[in-house]
Amino acid sequence: MKKFKVGLIRVVTTKDDQILNAHAKILLNHFPNMEIITRCIPDQLQGIYDDVTENIAVPKIIDLARNLEREKADAIFISCAADPAVKECRGILKIPVIGAGSACASLAMGISDRIGVLGITEHAPKVFVKMLRDKMIAEIKPEGVNNTLDLLSVEGEKNTVKAAGILKEKGCDTIALACTGMSTIGIAQVLRDTLQINVIDPVVAAGFFLRYLS
Amino acid sequence: MKKFKVGLIRVVTTKDDQILNAHAKILLNHFPNMEIITRCIPDQLQGIYDDVTENIAVPKIIDLARNLEREKADAIFISCAADPAVKECRGILKIPVIGAGSACASLAMGISDRIGVLGITEHAPKVFVKMLRDKMIAEIKPEGVNNTLDLLSVEGEKNTVKAAGILKEKGCDTIALACTGMSTIGIAQVLRDTLQINVIDPVVAAGFFLRYLS
Repeated sequence: MKKFKVGLIRVVTTKDDQILNAHAKILLNHFPNMEIITRCIPDQLQGIYDDVTENIAVPKIIDLARNLEREKADAIFISCAADPAVKECRGILKIPVIGAGSACASLAMGISDRIGVLGITEHAPKVFVKMLRDKMIAEIKPEGVNNTLDLLSVEGEKNTVKAAGILKEKGCDTIALACTGMSTIGIAQVLRDTLQINVIDPVVAAGFFLRYLS
Repeated sequence: MKKFKVGLIRVVTTKDDQILNAHAKILLNHFPNMEIITRCIPDQLQGIYDDVTENIAVPKIIDLARNLEREKADAIFISCAADPAVKECRGILKIPVIGAGSACASLAMGISDRIGVLGITEHAPKVFVKMLRDKMIAEIKPEGVNNTLDLLSVEGEKNTVKAAGILKEKGCDTIALACTGMSTIGIAQVLRDTLQINVIDPVVAAGFFLRYLS
């Protein structure tokens, strides 16, 4: 049987194949029956971290998505929790487009009314706020964690677990991770094991929707 | 490995095992690694078809859910697109509660911004309207179809396909089925084959969320 072909777009520029393919690897661990082609946007070594860098990235993401559709991808996955260019690509392409942010929020909404959003910015990405609405009962950013690199330190992981604990104390029964860097470090399983709470990983969440489409 | 145990609640009273287990059978076809115990609410041979019958059903559903939790279910699935008692059960039980309506709407939201809702009532169930918001660009009920029995006739199926075609003409790229009776008759595949459009089946959608939890 022909495998479902996913065009995966990374919103950070890298020449390191291991970094480039990190999200594809996570997806394939959970959903081996996919073929994944990963591309990254050019000239954004720091990725997307505010409105300006998001706006600059949008046309680059659209270009990559168009190319991947031409290369016969069955679906596009934009692997960023802010869902950059998801709406635009859906308006342009004929194939389905999945965003890590909307996938994560949607999966959380299907299982819970009391969702906590854990990200690396002061406020949850707009796509989470807009979709979850009154189902988002708290949002938090770990102390001292301001970018995905900060997540990698011992201190960063400790503070992420602490922040998730605060969400649980506030009454959340499900935590939606609002940063795909958290997928890369596999923090979801650490949080589940430590706090006995549902945790939605944005890359794995996207995999569930891609799996549904396949 | 111990199978994930789902307590499935049907919101229509029946003594016919084949009818009772129809939704369990659909789930097991897609997700064989589950154990499913089905129960139905008492004294509602016509099921839920308006606000009054929904309100009468709520405490009965809560009772069944409590019992299933006591019987060590890992999750509850309330198999009705109106999501009756889902919110209440989530507030009372310690295990996750999935509703066919919120599962269907959530799955649709993860893959599309242009969703059409196809049900058997004049207006889409409240849970769809509340969750989909501006992503629901059209809603429709097939002509002459007013209950799940009407779906079974040749005329009913023909008119359901016709209604779905109208949703596609209106610009929907994904159809969310807002009645679990449509799952029972397997109309999703008929619509996909006829119209080449994404179709979300509410029972199968619930299975995806249960699968995530397992």
